[in-house]
Amino acid sequence: MSASRIRVGILGATGTVGQKLVALLADHPWFEVTAVAASERSVGKRYREATHWLEPAPMPEATADLRVAPAQPPLAADIVLSALDAATAAAFEPAFARAGYAVISNAGAWRMHPSVPLLVPEINADHLALLATQEWRPGYIVTNPNCSTTGLACALAPLVRAFGVSDVHVTTLQAITGAGHPGIPALDILGNVVPFIAGEEEKIESETSKILGRIVGGRVEPAPMRISAHANRVPVLDGHLLCVSARLGRCVPIADVRAAFAEWRSQLDGLGLPSAPPRLLHVFDDAVSPQPRLHASLGDGMTVSVGRLRSCPLLDVRFVVLVHNTVRGAAGAAILNAELLAQRELLHAGKRLASDLAPLAAKSPRPTAPAGPDP
Amino acid sequence: MSASRIRVGILGATGTVGQKLVALLADHPWFEVTAVAASERSVGKRYREATHWLEPAPMPEATADLRVAPAQPPLAADIVLSALDAATAAAFEPAFARAGYAVISNAGAWRMHPSVPLLVPEINADHLALLATQEWRPGYIVTNPNCSTTGLACALAPLVRAFGVSDVHVTTLQAITGAGHPGIPALDILGNVVPFIAGEEEKIESETSKILGRIVGGRVEPAPMRISAHANRVPVLDGHLLCVSARLGRCVPIADVRAAFAEWRSQLDGLGLPSAPPRLLHVFDDAVSPQPRLHASLGDGMTVSVGRLRSCPLLDVRFVVLVHNTVRGAAGAAILNAELLAQRELLHAGKRLASDLAPLAAKSPRPTAPAGPDP
Amino acid sequence: MSASRIRVGILGATGTVGQKLVALLADHPWFEVTAVAASERSVGKRYREATHWLEPAPMPEATADLRVAPAQPPLAADIVLSALDAATAAAFEPAFARAGYAVISNAGAWRMHPSVPLLVPEINADHLALLATQEWRPGYIVTNPNCSTTGLACALAPLVRAFGVSDVHVTTLQAITGAGHPGIPALDILGNVVPFIAGEEEKIESETSKILGRIVGGRVEPAPMRISAHANRVPVLDGHLLCVSARLGRCVPIADVRAAFAEWRSQLDGLGLPSAPPRLLHVFDDAVSPQPRLHASLGDGMTVSVGRLRSCPLLDVRFVVLVHNTVRGAAGAAILNAELLAQRELLHAGKRLASDLAPLAAKSPRPTAPAGPDP
Amino acid sequence: MSASRIRVGILGATGTVGQKLVALLADHPWFEVTAVAASERSVGKRYREATHWLEPAPMPEATADLRVAPAQPPLAADIVLSALDAATAAAFEPAFARAGYAVISNAGAWRMHPSVPLLVPEINADHLALLATQEWRPGYIVTNPNCSTTGLACALAPLVRAFGVSDVHVTTLQAITGAGHPGIPALDILGNVVPFIAGEEEKIESETSKILGRIVGGRVEPAPMRISAHANRVPVLDGHLLCVSARLGRCVPIADVRAAFAEWRSQLDGLGLPSAPPRLLHVFDDAVSPQPRLHASLGDGMTVSVGRLRSCPLLDVRFVVLVHNTVRGAAGAAILNAELLAQRELLHAGKRLASDLAPLAAKSPRPTAPAGPDP
Repeated sequence: MSASRIRVGILGATGTVGQKLVALLADHPWFEVTAVAASERSVGKRYREATHWLEPAPMPEATADLRVAPAQPPLAADIVLSALDAATAAAFEPAFARAGYAVISNAGAWRMHPSVPLLVPEINADHLALLATQEWRPGYIVTNPNCSTTGLACALAPLVRAFGVSDVHVTTLQAITGAGHPGIPALDILGNVVPFIAGEEEKIESETSKILGRIVGGRVEPAPMRISAHANRVPVLDGHLLCVSARLGRCVPIADVRAAFAEWRSQLDGLGLPSAPPRLLHVFDDAVSPQPRLHASLGDGMTVSVGRLRSCPLLDVRFVVLVHNTVRGAAGAAILNAELLAQRELLHAGKRLASDLAPLAAKSPRPTAPAGPDP
Repeated sequence: MSASRIRVGILGATGTVGQKLVALLADHPWFEVTAVAASERSVGKRYREATHWLEPAPMPEATADLRVAPAQPPLAADIVLSALDAATAAAFEPAFARAGYAVISNAGAWRMHPSVPLLVPEINADHLALLATQEWRPGYIVTNPNCSTTGLACALAPLVRAFGVSDVHVTTLQAITGAGHPGIPALDILGNVVPFIAGEEEKIESETSKILGRIVGGRVEPAPMRISAHANRVPVLDGHLLCVSARLGRCVPIADVRAAFAEWRSQLDGLGLPSAPPRLLHVFDDAVSPQPRLHASLGDGMTVSVGRLRSCPLLDVRFVVLVHNTVRGAAGAAILNAELLAQRELLHAGKRLASDLAPLAAKSPRPTAPAGPDP
Repeated sequence: MSASRIRVGILGATGTVGQKLVALLADHPWFEVTAVAASERSVGKRYREATHWLEPAPMPEATADLRVAPAQPPLAADIVLSALDAATAAAFEPAFARAGYAVISNAGAWRMHPSVPLLVPEINADHLALLATQEWRPGYIVTNPNCSTTGLACALAPLVRAFGVSDVHVTTLQAITGAGHPGIPALDILGNVVPFIAGEEEKIESETSKILGRIVGGRVEPAPMRISAHANRVPVLDGHLLCVSARLGRCVPIADVRAAFAEWRSQLDGLGLPSAPPRLLHVFDDAVSPQPRLHASLGDGMTVSVGRLRSCPLLDVRFVVLVHNTVRGAAGAAILNAELLAQRELLHAGKRLASDLAPLAAKSPRPTAPAGPDP
Repeated sequence: MSASRIRVGILGATGTVGQKLVALLADHPWFEVTAVAASERSVGKRYREATHWLEPAPMPEATADLRVAPAQPPLAADIVLSALDAATAAAFEPAFARAGYAVISNAGAWRMHPSVPLLVPEINADHLALLATQEWRPGYIVTNPNCSTTGLACALAPLVRAFGVSDVHVTTLQAITGAGHPGIPALDILGNVVPFIAGEEEKIESETSKILGRIVGGRVEPAPMRISAHANRVPVLDGHLLCVSARLGRCVPIADVRAAFAEWRSQLDGLGLPSAPPRLLHVFDDAVSPQPRLHASLGDGMTVSVGRLRSCPLLDVRFVVLVHNTVRGAAGAAILNAELLAQRELLHAGKRLASDLAPLAAKSPRPTAPAGPDP
């Protein structure tokens, strides 16, 4: 059984996103963690000893026994999931790609690179077409967006499709897990708000347009929208909340906006990817939802919630969005990307040919677990 | 000494805003608390027994011994400060005004009434002119705004004056003290955000324009601006934070906006009101301020802080505002209004004539404590 | 399938413990919720409308559609699980028992009654023998202990068996879910500790001895120990932490105490009860565990954690205990009791004869789901 | 005016205790801060730039402009207050003492040294007699206890005097400010308890006996008591809460214990030290006090609160103690020690002779500010 699963190496495995990857992959039907890589300080230790484990579930025994490797190729794995910090990712992810690995990255380093797909696969699985143009062969790099951006893009996608969106105002209330560990000192955030998160507003303002853009001539044409973001850190454990106002392409009643959320269809529908939630979006119609502590884990943390949909005196509509920042916004997003690539049979690590990437239209649902790369 | 001070009755004295009024008036140079009124349940008890005291400073002994009276005239006081809930205020504040009391109210009931001044006295002390038109004689009603609105209006005032403001987008992160006691259950807010506060967005959207409006022909002409508000409750004790974006009347460099904050002058400058802070606005130039726990108490809670001033990709400027919700946003605001009225010699409770209210231009600073009402 | 499950009525179903019962029974292999009862205010409403749902998982659809019944017999159920408050339980649980229901109660009303088993079944399943003496026929009442007491009793059980325990000092740090909803106002507990919980210390001091006592002559002979408890409320969501010092019956090295925890055997071993955790006790050997947020949910909340085992300068040993207050300490405990009664074939509600209760020695493991009461 | 004040240098001035020293000394009638010293990283910077200021009041301007010096003599000051970490204090405090400075230290390094007074001056000002035996001449080292220990010793002092105390069991619930900045990561403590604080239990168990001991033959004879401590970190900002049980030297009614608290007299009574609170101990007689957020700042943080006094089933009495950890438990304690030394005229820095220290009986109250060290 294990023999037929795809072997995954995790880069940055000892950090909080790395730990979440390990936790989410503990019983994955397609993947198994066979290598963990981290910084020099941890190399050579067992994962068990190298990691200040913060997940609620116990550390998976098989991973606990792995020795931490350096974050450089080669790694005893077929593909790599990267939870590296941006600076390290900038240097080492291309090296893995050139060594033939599919690099599925949560890091910020390459997200905005023109040939790197920035995927929320329910929305833009077709952006995989960019891989045909990537320079780091024979592997490649695929990324998922920043955690807040993911929530925003998911909530905007139905509106972009139905009406167009030209202006977006978003204020975030972000959980402390987004800052990793040790992250924010308790003394700075207990009973407090910090109205600033370094680089966050810029990421939201730039990444969203790329995610929602269209493939034109082999490149992403960003969605033509202006975005203004205010980012705040709040004393919440999991779940980023976003207060969003948007100007639509045309003036419509709120009921039509509500219907657009209901009628929107994911590009993953019918594919049976293990980490895809039954629905990407859950819309609450009561007055007080969604709330981080109650609703961040909907759909095992992969569902994005929308609530308080109402008209906006300034733009057209406004609403609240909730996204689980370390699952849908980080580790779960990377795993879903890996599942998409497996389903498209793009995980022939070490053997990928440019020609494999040419016909990137969606294929029929993958019926069973993918064969391992070296059967 | 006490004989020469103005005798204050507090309506709704056992609630959290009532307690804050009691605490702030403990050593006030002009006022002394001589009566406390509350709901039926408390009437007849000593204030000490009727109150679940939540202020950090011990309950003032003199007030502790007072017996709670019903919230109806007459009251053993010259003026009343009202911390009643809106429904009770709607019924009983006019009764007090008709009985000859100056009613200085924090309640929401009469704020938007055309003849009721909605005061942030540094900004619009001239709105006292409305009193000449009030129907509840021989007393009157004066109000202060909702807590969040106060912060917003204070921050917008210099921009309105310097450039004009046409559009405002505001997202609030509001402290739990704003909901009183028992208020919000811990189970609902610990490690959580509730993205809704009943009535709050409507208050912000309606009150702000009145505060920033001009007196024209004996009425307030609201400032012509559109406002969109998202209100959130966060696990913070004191201090509402607001993320604001604004479109100005004309396009100016950020440095000019910064200068407008610095150059703005309060209508109270030089009056020496005891509760007026040295400056209404404090502008932070670092990246991470203001923060509720660190800065809400600036100027003894009467200073409003502004920070993170920067351009907005959507509107023109954006910034963060912090206001102490129970001081500047409630009890301290009412007391400052009372001080303004004392300085204008408008606290002749029981004897006020309509003619007293005609010449409401600012007078020279009051040099000493006001004479008592019955010299 | 549903036809063969035992039909459960939940008393006090709209409260937090009632909700936890509903959540934990959502997919139970032996039981199904067929009736929900609550106070007058809720009677007649759908459970969906009557309940301010606070569980992270969505409300089970089948339960959501039930109409709330009054907390009086008859109820469309075979047995009742009671999450009533103590006063209501005192009045109505006997009525249900007399009407033929097995009443499995989390309430405090009858715990210390001489003929009522106070069960932590891993420790004292043999206390079911008390049922032979109960007066409320043809049904009966079985209880589980107070939440903190449960943790203490579980941790002491191995020590009582191995060495005897004569003196116990315990200080609790209790989570806010223990107070239900609305429960504690946020204003009272955010960034604070309340060093008092009404009735809690008395419950810990009295219940523990009964749980750890022996059946002698058809009655419980309490364990001969003196207990001193300090109870505190802390801003934690789930999980009561207890700092315990104990004097043992004889002086032993800490290693022997550690071994006593490891070697202790549950009375449920081998029975296969669905809610019984793999091990009742998990002992941490590191310096900083257990912690409420990280470890309260071990064993799906049914495992009690022990840590920081070390000698005590005053008594003999000291250690930290963690118990999930609403699962092992309330709803999960009641369900485990119901499972034990089902396994002992004591859930013939409405038909129980006194003679059924005579031979109460443990029987062989129940291989399949119990037959319903009316096949 | 400033010329007549004693010049104070602060060691470890950029840390949280150092900042609290700066804040508390901002308007001190006897002392002025003339030097700030910190680690290499900060040396040469202005205090303003070197410090991540966390105090609610703005940084005092005069201190903000000081250049940070290395933590080595000489320093532009008459005496030094030390907020160094223990390791640095171990090395450098003796150097300052040998260079002629009175070193008034909050650090743990020298507290248990036989010739170093461990002062809570209300309790044991007479321990200054130890200075006659100190080796680091011509200056000396005086210390204050660990923060939790301070609260415990203050509460036990009246009982030791009135009845004797033989056994003490204490469980602490400690605020996060006790760990400094960055201190505890938010991810470790938000909605959580950490049942361990490195070294804390050992300090409580050893320091308390020394503080409460008697001077016999020029040395401290520790109070003969056994102490067992459990230390916990809780998500509270300021104020350590202690749950204490004590066995008294003789069995007395609780009313007598209550009276002992009321009748106890401080060794500082009548001395007029600026930082001494009106009463060291405040005893609450209600059921739910003291609480950290409400009561830690009593007496400007220098009063220790006691509450929930009741009999203990195991030892004799039990009660709750609250101490402001960074004021009475750290910075305020050091300042009070400095005031005591000034009042005793023991701050002749650089000129102290052993003979000055011989007659250390209490002198008459110091009527005015002390003369500077070089009259």
